[in-house]
Amino acid sequence: MRNVKAAVCVKCGAEFDAGHDTYTCAKCGGVLEIVYDYEYIKSRLTKEILTSSKDFSIWRYIELLPIEEGARLSPLRGELRCMLRAGWSPLYKTEALGEAMGLKNLHVKDDGLNPTSSLKDRASAIAAVRALHAGKDTVACSSTGNAASSLAGAAAAMGLKSVIFVPERAPIGKVTQLLMFGATVISVKGNYEQTFRLSAAAIEKYGWYNRNAAVNPYLSEGKKTVSFEIAEQLGFNSPDYVALSVGDGCTIAGVWKGFKDLYAVGLIDKLPRLISVQAEGCCPVNRAIENNSPIEWMDENTLADSIAVGAPRNGDKALAAIDESNGITVNVSDEEILAAMRLLGKTSGVFAEPAGAAGTAGLIKAAKQKRIPEDALVVSLVTGNGLKDIASAQLATKLPAPKAAGIGAANAAGFSSRLIHIEPDMDLLNPLLLHPQYP
Amino acid sequence: MRNVKAAVCVKCGAEFDAGHDTYTCAKCGGVLEIVYDYEYIKSRLTKEILTSSKDFSIWRYIELLPIEEGARLSPLRGELRCMLRAGWSPLYKTEALGEAMGLKNLHVKDDGLNPTSSLKDRASAIAAVRALHAGKDTVACSSTGNAASSLAGAAAAMGLKSVIFVPERAPIGKVTQLLMFGATVISVKGNYEQTFRLSAAAIEKYGWYNRNAAVNPYLSEGKKTVSFEIAEQLGFNSPDYVALSVGDGCTIAGVWKGFKDLYAVGLIDKLPRLISVQAEGCCPVNRAIENNSPIEWMDENTLADSIAVGAPRNGDKALAAIDESNGITVNVSDEEILAAMRLLGKTSGVFAEPAGAAGTAGLIKAAKQKRIPEDALVVSLVTGNGLKDIASAQLATKLPAPKAAGIGAANAAGFSSRLIHIEPDMDLLNPLLLHPQYP
Repeated sequence: MRNVKAAVCVKCGAEFDAGHDTYTCAKCGGVLEIVYDYEYIKSRLTKEILTSSKDFSIWRYIELLPIEEGARLSPLRGELRCMLRAGWSPLYKTEALGEAMGLKNLHVKDDGLNPTSSLKDRASAIAAVRALHAGKDTVACSSTGNAASSLAGAAAAMGLKSVIFVPERAPIGKVTQLLMFGATVISVKGNYEQTFRLSAAAIEKYGWYNRNAAVNPYLSEGKKTVSFEIAEQLGFNSPDYVALSVGDGCTIAGVWKGFKDLYAVGLIDKLPRLISVQAEGCCPVNRAIENNSPIEWMDENTLADSIAVGAPRNGDKALAAIDESNGITVNVSDEEILAAMRLLGKTSGVFAEPAGAAGTAGLIKAAKQKRIPEDALVVSLVTGNGLKDIASAQLATKLPAPKAAGIGAANAAGFSSRLIHIEPDMDLLNPLLLHPQYP
Repeated sequence: MRNVKAAVCVKCGAEFDAGHDTYTCAKCGGVLEIVYDYEYIKSRLTKEILTSSKDFSIWRYIELLPIEEGARLSPLRGELRCMLRAGWSPLYKTEALGEAMGLKNLHVKDDGLNPTSSLKDRASAIAAVRALHAGKDTVACSSTGNAASSLAGAAAAMGLKSVIFVPERAPIGKVTQLLMFGATVISVKGNYEQTFRLSAAAIEKYGWYNRNAAVNPYLSEGKKTVSFEIAEQLGFNSPDYVALSVGDGCTIAGVWKGFKDLYAVGLIDKLPRLISVQAEGCCPVNRAIENNSPIEWMDENTLADSIAVGAPRNGDKALAAIDESNGITVNVSDEEILAAMRLLGKTSGVFAEPAGAAGTAGLIKAAKQKRIPEDALVVSLVTGNGLKDIASAQLATKLPAPKAAGIGAANAAGFSSRLIHIEPDMDLLNPLLLHPQYP
């Protein structure tokens, strides 16, 4: 790869070739970061070239991705392989949501509209292409859900087998999704950390391609494309702030890397401040920042399953991203997350899963605390689709049990729900239906 | 609208102005079709203009849409209104799926990747823009689910209120989704026909904007954009066949209109044959074609809720589309639909809801019956995301009850499931894990 210089350990600085078998530092075990030849890339990834590109997926930025030329081609006929279209999700300017939190220039990036409905599709696309190019026939990972379904989907489209390790608390919607993609699913009766260790041992033993973001340095390279898109969709400008939820740490590391890459090749002229949002019940990264201490294990007490990571595997990269960006930390309760889900849906037509809305919840809180200037250019990153976790959405909407209510019951309850059950022959002139609260 | 000539009744031929209050024929009550000035449009919508367009949404085809100039602009500042990005879903060439059914040139159009995860977003975008332009503050419809959530989402993004009538059998995922968008939901204890009649009476009484596809002739105009995209994504070529599921009839009417429009303005040089797929348990449109008789009411016996429409409201348009295209009818069982869902996921990484996969199920059946030449250029249209109906996906994956199985139980059951539950400290060398069937 002419565009990649090396894989460098973020702990000890040792350099390695960015080859197929390079995962973690062979010297100290640290996480690796991919270093590019920005001078080489500068002339190949300009505003003009991007503006005329017709590839609206993560591959429009291939000059800044760790992919060999030809890796995406089928060896038989030289055509592009069948693969899912990851990336180029919409960036919405949402005035109503901005007004609700007192921000005048707020955008929402809806990454729930990726092929398997989460941001993780960006990383899994890179993993699947690299796995095939490395001659593997099976890919594997441990995941609370979205990394899993994205990997299973990407693998299915490209003819790879997949083995997925999930903790037993993974929502049934996510497990079902990856079974539909033909994955072999190992449900571990334990927490994320135990699931991760088990997957690592199995991957080592059986020689599968390792898509664990904690270990595989190429995944945050996929995730960083979301920052490329944000900047390009803002007319090659960096936002002042980007709010996002943090679990394992890989996503915030990728987001930060994306903006640094663009800055290095001259496509943006400043860098954003990151707003790192975690759940109050599981915030080891933010706690480390706030206490200026190392990351320590925490329980995983939040309904936002995708960010319920007690022992973040990319903690070092996450801390660096928050530090370097002069970032802000915000911890939110489950109630604040559910409220943010409702607000996103009602004001913007964006349906987010809890972890997907946690970034918005943190932004609401930070804005209320006047930590964000009201005229700042702000992007709230929604990382996953609400359809993935209907049980939490039901909590958010306080949906009554089907058939339990009637129009009279709804009225008696003060129309606290917006779901009204009626008989088909009901008199439409019934004034209850036109209660002042409706529609 | 300079590009629109009139709204013409498909039954009696009467012509009307395509204005705000034009829904059905004022003379005979028939459904209206929007007629364009193709000569005027020809010079404004060329391959060159489209190829250089940077708008990757349904609005790239605005010259062929019934929208006033300026209707999408906010009156206050002349900027584009906040709205969801409907359209430009991916078209995948899926060799593995094609091989499975003996077709050499098969593509899947994944319309489950629209903003609220179904094709209906295309129609609701048109409805919301026209409602705002007509000065309405509330939009309403009856729907088995997807039209509803798409309308609620589009309305939320544009600051409109929405009132949705759903039959009580609508899957909880769909109801929850539209509650998240802030809609007022009226759940009717009856079938789709009763729900529709109730919504019509309420809309009439309260003067809401009517988004019922049976009545509103502008909705199939939104849906037709899927055909524009298919042709453009195939390099301005028409497929030989397009397979899709049929419920109310509005979607197949829109798909056919789209290809006819493109043909009329010279962007394609032939028209496809439509493959109309219905559920065996509810196939009034196909039965009418097969028996050369009028459409008659049928029970609604299928798990594919989005196409369980016993009395299709756009039946006339649907019959005309099938007739004019020299179309093929195929009826499929629920088991065939579930099998198609599994095959789509496993071979292509596309997760479809039952009605979304029904078109593929019909295509599999027609191909097996040798009704489709193996080298034909075929598109299978997936109309909705599988995450919308996890209960059906669970049926398709035959998911065992969580925690009920163990590695031993899985083995004892002959590994009939690909979901394996294990303890976190399980010995990974356990040969059961490496049963020949896994991964």
